[in-house]
Amino acid sequence: MSDTLASWNDGGARSAIIGFVDRITKAGTSDFVPSQERIAVFDNDGTLWCEKPLPIQADFLFRRLAQMVEKDPSLGTRQPWKAVVEKDYVWLGAAIEKHYRGDDSALKMMIGGLLQCYQGVSIEEFETTAGDFLRSAQHPVLKRPYLECTYRPMIELLRYLEANGFTCYIASGGSRDFMRPVTQGLYGIPPERVIGSTVALEYQEDASGGCIVHKPELDIFDDGPAKPVRIWSRIGRRPIFAAGNSNGDIQMLHYCSDPARPSFKLLVNHDDKEREFDYVAGAEESLKLAQQEGWTVASIRTDWRTVFSDTSLQG
Amino acid sequence: MSDTLASWNDGGARSAIIGFVDRITKAGTSDFVPSQERIAVFDNDGTLWCEKPLPIQADFLFRRLAQMVEKDPSLGTRQPWKAVVEKDYVWLGAAIEKHYRGDDSALKMMIGGLLQCYQGVSIEEFETTAGDFLRSAQHPVLKRPYLECTYRPMIELLRYLEANGFTCYIASGGSRDFMRPVTQGLYGIPPERVIGSTVALEYQEDASGGCIVHKPELDIFDDGPAKPVRIWSRIGRRPIFAAGNSNGDIQMLHYCSDPARPSFKLLVNHDDKEREFDYVAGAEESLKLAQQEGWTVASIRTDWRTVFSDTSLQG
Repeated sequence: MSDTLASWNDGGARSAIIGFVDRITKAGTSDFVPSQERIAVFDNDGTLWCEKPLPIQADFLFRRLAQMVEKDPSLGTRQPWKAVVEKDYVWLGAAIEKHYRGDDSALKMMIGGLLQCYQGVSIEEFETTAGDFLRSAQHPVLKRPYLECTYRPMIELLRYLEANGFTCYIASGGSRDFMRPVTQGLYGIPPERVIGSTVALEYQEDASGGCIVHKPELDIFDDGPAKPVRIWSRIGRRPIFAAGNSNGDIQMLHYCSDPARPSFKLLVNHDDKEREFDYVAGAEESLKLAQQEGWTVASIRTDWRTVFSDTSLQG
Repeated sequence: MSDTLASWNDGGARSAIIGFVDRITKAGTSDFVPSQERIAVFDNDGTLWCEKPLPIQADFLFRRLAQMVEKDPSLGTRQPWKAVVEKDYVWLGAAIEKHYRGDDSALKMMIGGLLQCYQGVSIEEFETTAGDFLRSAQHPVLKRPYLECTYRPMIELLRYLEANGFTCYIASGGSRDFMRPVTQGLYGIPPERVIGSTVALEYQEDASGGCIVHKPELDIFDDGPAKPVRIWSRIGRRPIFAAGNSNGDIQMLHYCSDPARPSFKLLVNHDDKEREFDYVAGAEESLKLAQQEGWTVASIRTDWRTVFSDTSLQG
């Protein structure tokens, strides 16, 4: 099968993945895992699509913050609106990085502003707005459509696992309802298999079937120790394959370790300055643990023959 | 197809169901609904299995409360332990019925006690305990195994919908993790398609893959207006078929009404004193709305040829 994981270079991570899949699909052996238990979970930002210089969702939300200032200029003197108006990407980026160092003050300020963005908006309206943005906006540095900032080797991996009886889920710190409009088209993952962060939602009666709207409260920030809980809550099974790229994925990767059977942990390492980005901020701990605990590290530079998907070549 | 819904009597609810399914599966018509959008949601207690004289889960939890009193007799003077020790089913039943009339005081007291039952217990232990109970305990009045207190016509309905391209979910006020150990066997519904109430869960690191344990807090009581929100959160689509039996299902049934396409609402009416139970308590509003809004009512007495499944006759 020379077509298997064709965007991956031979050896290294590719061999480890194929070896694992061969091992757990061989009926009659002690390592065999039945198909219904072949659950794989994938982080999204930095694992399935590019997350630098800022997560794609941050761009989406910042544009909305800017629209709010247009309507109410007085907001422009306060954070997070101030940073957006002044294009202060250092403040914005630092808010997320500080979070990884245990300081949530700026992140909370940002989230407070973001939650106001969609207060009272219905899930259908949000779906349309998010989908329209994702289908039209462009990456500010890579200068390609956001929908072509997905990683081709990882999409091949999703297909390869599915071809071997796996069911794949997204388990992301990003917003579930932001991703859902495009996950089927991008990854072949339908909305019911997208797990992520979410604002609080509220059901409101109306004359035609009722309506679910956004409340200005965070419900779940699906990162770190929240990930295994959300995975269990949604799936009711412990995954045997997990892929991530940051400290926020550590617990998810740990949780993918049923002592009674084989499991596979994949960490994507962003070390390719030429073709993508080269960074370890937010991934220091996970890279250390990968070494210590023998997780498989996929180096973008050396393991990936191609980095990005080119959707213009598809169908 | 004379085998279609064989436990349903001709006419009435059966004809309405078949008419709806025929209508939305005819390709090329304006009522056609693509297979991936054929989502059906089913309440569990009183819709898929018997909920009287008390929900099956209440029996499970009350036995645990009784065990707590055995260990610590001083608990026996306080509610809800007192009611359990004194077999005061009136107090226990009233706690649930009062909830439907807007008075949650007794229910909260009961839930407070119940949450203590499984504090610190892992999801795997709980799964084993719940599964063992369900596979061995017997209904106190019907004198048959709990697992044979499921409704055969409703299980036929699940299979019929699936044969017509539907994906069926349970959306229950009962505990998700209590049902999950048996839903595949009973209903052909795997754990990832079980939505329900849940206590708060917490991830704890350990040497072998980490562990998710119960906290002594209710996370979500999946009833009434919580049901549409939970359904959206899990599935990301609006159902076109919903079945329930009580006031707690009203919002779920309403939500199953996309104005742009056909939808079907089924309400099970417990009116069969001979073969099951005859009650309207907790269903008054839903029965009134069924009349007003033209939902289909399945009368157990007249629409169902057989009531209960007989698992001993199955493979």
